[in-house]
Amino acid sequence: MTRTSLREVTCSIARTVDVLGDAWSWLIVRDVFLGVRRFDDLCADLGVSRKVLAERLRQLTDAGILIRDVGTAGRRSGYRLTEKGEGLVPILAALTAWGDRWEPTPGGPPLRLDHAGCGAISAEVTCSHCGEPLAADSLVARPGPGGRTGPGTALLGRYLQTADEAGRDDQGGAGGT
Amino acid sequence: MTRTSLREVTCSIARTVDVLGDAWSWLIVRDVFLGVRRFDDLCADLGVSRKVLAERLRQLTDAGILIRDVGTAGRRSGYRLTEKGEGLVPILAALTAWGDRWEPTPGGPPLRLDHAGCGAISAEVTCSHCGEPLAADSLVARPGPGGRTGPGTALLGRYLQTADEAGRDDQGGAGGT
Repeated sequence: MTRTSLREVTCSIARTVDVLGDAWSWLIVRDVFLGVRRFDDLCADLGVSRKVLAERLRQLTDAGILIRDVGTAGRRSGYRLTEKGEGLVPILAALTAWGDRWEPTPGGPPLRLDHAGCGAISAEVTCSHCGEPLAADSLVARPGPGGRTGPGTALLGRYLQTADEAGRDDQGGAGGT
Repeated sequence: MTRTSLREVTCSIARTVDVLGDAWSWLIVRDVFLGVRRFDDLCADLGVSRKVLAERLRQLTDAGILIRDVGTAGRRSGYRLTEKGEGLVPILAALTAWGDRWEPTPGGPPLRLDHAGCGAISAEVTCSHCGEPLAADSLVARPGPGGRTGPGTALLGRYLQTADEAGRDDQGGAGGT
């Protein structure tokens, strides 16, 4: 099964998409962020079976992405995002921007995610150092300290070493040890 | 089935995660970006069955994310990212940054995705207008022109209207047509 075999892959992308489970999990995070927080409302909004919804909510809660508020007097129970879950919201904005461009909806974007105070914007993934938008041809992949060879990364080290050497070559062969 | 029911959801997030299929699809995009381009190499690197790999490659090719280069003299056949597929690479960088922080690997990040010329960086999702990092509490969700009520968005319009009105309230109630 996908979930079992991805859990141990030494790759932050694999760990992230494993924790998210499947497409429903992304939509649950979307809904809770947008304010749809109760089980029955999530079920009605998504049109998903109660069984699948309960399973995904359990996975997201176990992973520390959602937390369940127990209802108290005057406040109904429901789910909300933890700090870890809120960290996925900017990625939802990036997925929205990609979908708006490459899988467009007739009539225009169904949802606007605007930066408060800036008006309509499009989310961009940028470099934390220089602020430039990242693109496939401006990213250099290198092995990190936690990298190791195993299922899901069986050959990758070889390709990353190559990329690393290519990166050093770009700098005029100034790389050393 | 998830894939069937998500295809028609009027939501760019749903369309995106539907096109990506499941976790294996993200890892295939990762691998092709990193240079693992041949079927047998993808199979060996990911440790996935040939049947699942062939199915995911077909979905990604049908979706216009991958294209298959036919081998010619001196060049072996393999897959590469289209422009649409390259648009997912910055999102991979954002997923990597989230995973590095929230699902860390013992020993440190397994993979560094550096901005060429900037050295080690972390990808951030930022506002295309002001460049500030986006966060859950600085994003305002509003209905877009293509939004409609249906499976996957059955109740959402109601919540977005509320968010929209809240947004107008933030601006001192100056909103209105």
